[in-house]
Amino acid sequence: MNRPHPNADVRMRGFVSRATVDEALAWLNGQVQTLPAEKIALSDAVGRVLAVDVVSQFDVPGFDRAMMDGYAVVAADTQGASPYNPLPLTVLGTALPGQPFLGSVAPGQAVRVMTGAPMPDGADAVLPAEVTELDGPRLIAQADVPPGRHVGFQAEDIRRNALLLPAGRELRPQDLGVLSSVGVAEVSVVRRPTVRIVATGNELLPAGSAPHGYHITDANTPMLRALAVRDGGQMLSAEIVPDQRERILAAIRQPCDVLLVSGGSSVGQEDHVPTLVAEHGELAIHGIAMRPSSPTGLGKLGPALVMLLPGNPVSCLCAYDFFAGRAIRMLGGRNPDWPYRRARLPLARKLVSTVGRVDYARVTLAGGQIEPVSISGASVLSSTTRADGFVIVPGDSEGYAAGSAVEVFLYD
Amino acid sequence: MNRPHPNADVRMRGFVSRATVDEALAWLNGQVQTLPAEKIALSDAVGRVLAVDVVSQFDVPGFDRAMMDGYAVVAADTQGASPYNPLPLTVLGTALPGQPFLGSVAPGQAVRVMTGAPMPDGADAVLPAEVTELDGPRLIAQADVPPGRHVGFQAEDIRRNALLLPAGRELRPQDLGVLSSVGVAEVSVVRRPTVRIVATGNELLPAGSAPHGYHITDANTPMLRALAVRDGGQMLSAEIVPDQRERILAAIRQPCDVLLVSGGSSVGQEDHVPTLVAEHGELAIHGIAMRPSSPTGLGKLGPALVMLLPGNPVSCLCAYDFFAGRAIRMLGGRNPDWPYRRARLPLARKLVSTVGRVDYARVTLAGGQIEPVSISGASVLSSTTRADGFVIVPGDSEGYAAGSAVEVFLYD
Repeated sequence: MNRPHPNADVRMRGFVSRATVDEALAWLNGQVQTLPAEKIALSDAVGRVLAVDVVSQFDVPGFDRAMMDGYAVVAADTQGASPYNPLPLTVLGTALPGQPFLGSVAPGQAVRVMTGAPMPDGADAVLPAEVTELDGPRLIAQADVPPGRHVGFQAEDIRRNALLLPAGRELRPQDLGVLSSVGVAEVSVVRRPTVRIVATGNELLPAGSAPHGYHITDANTPMLRALAVRDGGQMLSAEIVPDQRERILAAIRQPCDVLLVSGGSSVGQEDHVPTLVAEHGELAIHGIAMRPSSPTGLGKLGPALVMLLPGNPVSCLCAYDFFAGRAIRMLGGRNPDWPYRRARLPLARKLVSTVGRVDYARVTLAGGQIEPVSISGASVLSSTTRADGFVIVPGDSEGYAAGSAVEVFLYD
Repeated sequence: MNRPHPNADVRMRGFVSRATVDEALAWLNGQVQTLPAEKIALSDAVGRVLAVDVVSQFDVPGFDRAMMDGYAVVAADTQGASPYNPLPLTVLGTALPGQPFLGSVAPGQAVRVMTGAPMPDGADAVLPAEVTELDGPRLIAQADVPPGRHVGFQAEDIRRNALLLPAGRELRPQDLGVLSSVGVAEVSVVRRPTVRIVATGNELLPAGSAPHGYHITDANTPMLRALAVRDGGQMLSAEIVPDQRERILAAIRQPCDVLLVSGGSSVGQEDHVPTLVAEHGELAIHGIAMRPSSPTGLGKLGPALVMLLPGNPVSCLCAYDFFAGRAIRMLGGRNPDWPYRRARLPLARKLVSTVGRVDYARVTLAGGQIEPVSISGASVLSSTTRADGFVIVPGDSEGYAAGSAVEVFLYD
């Protein structure tokens, strides 16, 4: 006589057996391969990931050069020179950076050199200007120098055919300097994963609108866009779509590497996205044993990875950080791990969790201790702006006692 | 009879009394003030620095709303309901996100709600769909709920007129979400410092050229550009200029907030930059007791801060990081401190320094220990790409013994 309420029924079917976070990550890891390479200009390459080893085609420096201002000399010739035993030398000419002296230096001779100038033939050391005097046309050396002193030798920085930087390297500012010094104009880097954002919901107003009536302003698109760019993604589009199957389907079928769908990810009457992904692609994971973000889904639509992120902004951030960010980093050849600074600090008070789910607990730092953020509602996005970071409580833990040292991930 | 060599003379005059690093930083700190504000679109604001406090103009949420799929009810009405004491309720209608139910709920009544829907008048709790059944047209409640259960209350996330984010905040992805949720379309942020790079040297080939003959390819411009952008600078131009006074003067007089001049910073015959800065502006610091980078200068040309960075790429990186990066960060309203992750780790072997100068020692990490990078020449830029980071040895230290725990700054 009594039939179960259809919604209750759907909810029970949908989420009666949630996947664990580890199961969701394992599925994701199995789907993601580093994207192919593309060539870009060196000047655009900072922060990009090398797709191949870079081998130097040149010695750096390409020639022996003076490392001080002074005089290129034959070192053996200066033996015993001192203020009490001055050694007269004939100055043959000058070498400047880029302007070599074209003759050769013999005992009794010197060539004036500026830092960076090519060493003249025959000379094997630089006598610093400070230990010399001029006596009319002649140079007086007042100290001796051993062979090689103040000379930068060919290839001492980089040897031709040596491995300069390995594939997988995330390029640092100084890496660009080194690559430039060996004449590299373009580098082969991992292509950036392309990302689309689709935010669903009849109640959503575009970012930048004043909220009014029963409408709310989209918080997730600006946040997700910034997160995706942080993780090396290339934004293609961001769009707000009402809760209509056809509109949503058209939006989520646009090609990209990673599709982030915010909202409509659960099992209610207006949650069209999971059904659409299951019908037109693969809904591999739906419902994850974690808090927040339990109504998260992972799947594929054609070649695109689809991340069904809850509309609740805190859940959206958490689900992005656990799954979507990782996928974008892995596609881009980056370290899949959390992109946050870590510290190990004591808890100011206990942090309670429930066995069987992973918790993403926002915390503040004060006086070298971790303080869990008190929140009255799960949807409180401002908890993530008041927080300095978060603690992850694993599924098999009931939480941590006050005073325990725990690992915190810092948002800064 | 003997007169000192002019170069030696100049060198003695120039650098006989080098400034300490602390004196140079003190001068810099006295020159730099946070730049004025500019308005930018919220979507461009991640990583930018708020110029003013942001106060919310709205409550978030702007209305009480359902936090679960189920039925909005009068909580008191459900007292004692259970599977053994089912409570029949009349369903008046439905509320969806953005689509309120316009009537009012009284005892004996319920309104179907989806997560995010506005709570109907009269209702003060949500009965989850899972604890209900439908019996023909009637809803059967099989559990009770206390007042407020599964309701997200108006302003529980953000209260109107509350301080949302303080001036000086470097905006995070979730900050954009919060700002968007209160209808912020534009934010007032600190203007980015404008930066020009002038690399001097007759021997320099532009980045991207193969080195040939006695010419070398400019390594500093690509590196400095990436560093300046990392620190929040806005690049205006980068130019290579030969060692000619007029050409250099024309290049360094272009207006900007921070001018980075690479090369020609010492006291040799081709080192025109210090003289030009002294003649046309102020050369406040020239020669600093540090290694590398001792031929570094700091000054002003009109309103522009001028950083005279040594041409040697390692010295250039070090001088940038000690002084120029700090200036750019401070102008942009950012934390002046080193932008590198830190760790405290033991030294695998001793690190020797000289009292009276600050050392910037490149190190690698291996097995949880710090290993100083062996370098044969001071100009070895590849030492900064082989290194994982650096240790700063202060001026009053002779260095550290093997096994000492020291602070390391990590390049990653």
